[in-house]
Amino acid sequence: MANQIVKPSTLPGFIEWLPADQIAFNKMMDIIRKNYEKYGFIPVDTPVIEKSEVLLAKGGGETEKQIYRFNKGDSDLSLRFDLTVPLARFVAQHMNDLTFPFRRYQIGKVYRGERNQKGRFREFYQCDIDIIGNGKLNIINDAEIPSIIYSTFTDLGFNYFTIHINNRKILNGFFDAIGVKDKVETLRIVDKLDKIGINAVKSELKDLGLTCDAINRIEEFINIKGTNDEILESLKELNIENDEFSLGVEEISKVVYYIRQFGVPDKNFVIDLKIARGLDYYTGTVYETILNDYPGIGSVCSGGRYDNLAEYYTTQKLPGVGISIGLSRLFYQLKEANFFKENTSSTLTKVLVVPMDENIAYSIGISNELKKAGIITEVYFEEGKFAKKLSYANKLGIPYVIIIGSDEISSGILTLKDMKSGEQSKLTIEEIINKLK
Amino acid sequence: MANQIVKPSTLPGFIEWLPADQIAFNKMMDIIRKNYEKYGFIPVDTPVIEKSEVLLAKGGGETEKQIYRFNKGDSDLSLRFDLTVPLARFVAQHMNDLTFPFRRYQIGKVYRGERNQKGRFREFYQCDIDIIGNGKLNIINDAEIPSIIYSTFTDLGFNYFTIHINNRKILNGFFDAIGVKDKVETLRIVDKLDKIGINAVKSELKDLGLTCDAINRIEEFINIKGTNDEILESLKELNIENDEFSLGVEEISKVVYYIRQFGVPDKNFVIDLKIARGLDYYTGTVYETILNDYPGIGSVCSGGRYDNLAEYYTTQKLPGVGISIGLSRLFYQLKEANFFKENTSSTLTKVLVVPMDENIAYSIGISNELKKAGIITEVYFEEGKFAKKLSYANKLGIPYVIIIGSDEISSGILTLKDMKSGEQSKLTIEEIINKLK
Repeated sequence: MANQIVKPSTLPGFIEWLPADQIAFNKMMDIIRKNYEKYGFIPVDTPVIEKSEVLLAKGGGETEKQIYRFNKGDSDLSLRFDLTVPLARFVAQHMNDLTFPFRRYQIGKVYRGERNQKGRFREFYQCDIDIIGNGKLNIINDAEIPSIIYSTFTDLGFNYFTIHINNRKILNGFFDAIGVKDKVETLRIVDKLDKIGINAVKSELKDLGLTCDAINRIEEFINIKGTNDEILESLKELNIENDEFSLGVEEISKVVYYIRQFGVPDKNFVIDLKIARGLDYYTGTVYETILNDYPGIGSVCSGGRYDNLAEYYTTQKLPGVGISIGLSRLFYQLKEANFFKENTSSTLTKVLVVPMDENIAYSIGISNELKKAGIITEVYFEEGKFAKKLSYANKLGIPYVIIIGSDEISSGILTLKDMKSGEQSKLTIEEIINKLK
Repeated sequence: MANQIVKPSTLPGFIEWLPADQIAFNKMMDIIRKNYEKYGFIPVDTPVIEKSEVLLAKGGGETEKQIYRFNKGDSDLSLRFDLTVPLARFVAQHMNDLTFPFRRYQIGKVYRGERNQKGRFREFYQCDIDIIGNGKLNIINDAEIPSIIYSTFTDLGFNYFTIHINNRKILNGFFDAIGVKDKVETLRIVDKLDKIGINAVKSELKDLGLTCDAINRIEEFINIKGTNDEILESLKELNIENDEFSLGVEEISKVVYYIRQFGVPDKNFVIDLKIARGLDYYTGTVYETILNDYPGIGSVCSGGRYDNLAEYYTTQKLPGVGISIGLSRLFYQLKEANFFKENTSSTLTKVLVVPMDENIAYSIGISNELKKAGIITEVYFEEGKFAKKLSYANKLGIPYVIIIGSDEISSGILTLKDMKSGEQSKLTIEEIINKLK
């Protein structure tokens, strides 16, 4: 009885990559992981599904509408929409089993039922690090984070990127000093500067009820330009008398000092007084990272300092600082921008052993030796003409083929074919291992 | 306003590990991945959520009851319950973009709403490899699979394990030859031999309506013992005249021959005529893997040969062979059996740099050099007494601490403390790098 055929397809907004892309994607993920580990971050892997009451403890807003939420038996379940809420729950739950400052990384899929559009996914990878203090956490941690961004994006193959740094206390204190009432909304508007331009920002601020004087001082403030040291100097010269502002300037000065100690060149980080990270979650340092060859992608690595990670799960005060790389979106955008060019391959295999006739056992022996030497090796087992066997290597992009015929077996001298140049050499197995290693 | 505190907890059946366990878990996962890659398998990462009509195309049975299925908008969604169905969908969908034989690995979480019990998880990792042919696939692939199991479990630190191999054609043909009608049910009963014993099996076979003669021949058959070669000899000596039986014996003989070519020692694999892998999915070779020091765990790596991977998604015939390691359950059971002993650590960090006073900038410089040399390094930034700083290293199990005071800075000779022995040495940074690398 023939089965009824169901058309094989995935859900809109759910991406999967073909081999060449998946290999390139994994390479990026491995580099990120290696960098996170190099700085002493510890892996955590929380469940994808959590209790809705836990995941939605904060509640409200866009998040709740986008969430994948459902019942199974008596349980009200939700899929995680970020890795921060699960971290808060994890730390509060396992408080007594953790050592603080707790440096954790997590790389995993998160779920948001966003409107389906190009480059926006409903299932995507986030790669997060956070440093969580118990009660307090030194500001120097805020300076280490950019050094991790620097190290990671350098290893990913970028040179021309800039880490934008600001401190929410500066903006908050400044707004207080000039008499801005609705700071959250004002921040939200200022945060749109790059998208809508200064005139639209001013007009929206006016609609919000700000005085012309306040709007002019905001414009003057966000126009502060220069080197990092010049910006710090300009901030001090504003002579704003406000404790929060002063604390913010002191913090960002320390952060800049220590970022340099960590070896991040000044060309790769900049104080950017207009970034605010819209959310009301951050309380101090904030970060955005721009790939200057791909400015259209927007920030590829963002985060900041928060006062209290887990207020919905514990009365314990847990300040922290962290960043997130939205890897799926970043990868997709880089691919669209032709970043990977010809550097991708549909295989990890270095060499294919092709038996000519009935020499499969001998070919397997050769493959054993190559694998023992750490060389990724396949043997072509299927029947068929020689050309078909070679075409398997060609299609996948396997760089070398070893041809095994009866001459090769009797002499012990193997034929190594370089699939790119077409060149064939006669070599012993030891010579091949030395060449391919 | 104080928030209402939600008790931080995870759902029953959803496991997460504390750092020491997570690090040990990841180490196992990395070893499995490295072995899969060494044999030329290509990574695939399908979505966790699929269309229900796709995931449940086969339908029926226990699976459908256990599945996490829900609606979002107009979509009927399900969480994957294994990695095989998504592979079938993937191959059928991307047929024209893949090269065959298609060797893919996938390591990911799957979901089953099983009854909650010790060591059974509702979210767990599977680590799968499959080799998929287009139309046909050489039997030698069935012999390569055990060599991958051998390599993987050896690298995982096991020596005393046995790969059990059988061929469904032998059982099927044998049953036909002795007049067994309900082969699927007979196989299901024989498969329970280890659990319920020979007498219960015989009694159940009698209930099924088998003749005494047939039952006796089955007992005789599953009692065939000896070395692999002796078992092959005994099979031939049964003089069963049945094409499927003969083909099965021929196949298993070839598989045994080539397993040896792949370098798997005879002590690590055994023909086991009573394993059947209950499912009606497999059509040829079947595998189970037993850790002989932990027989209670059952099979830790199972799989087999199937005729047609994707019959619900395409009319194209796609035979394949594959295995799966249920890593979450394996890890849990090994942990329960005290396999990891003292070999776990709550950190990946090799050395903690501890500034004594205000020498943080100098300490950061030291940490930069250590990281450049590939040594995972942290600096302790927080304020506090020296003992508190050391206790951070102690609690996490960081093996070395470098102490930086003003003496160290002026002389350039650092103090390296071995946290296990307590021994302190005075060394230059170069000497420390050489020692720790």
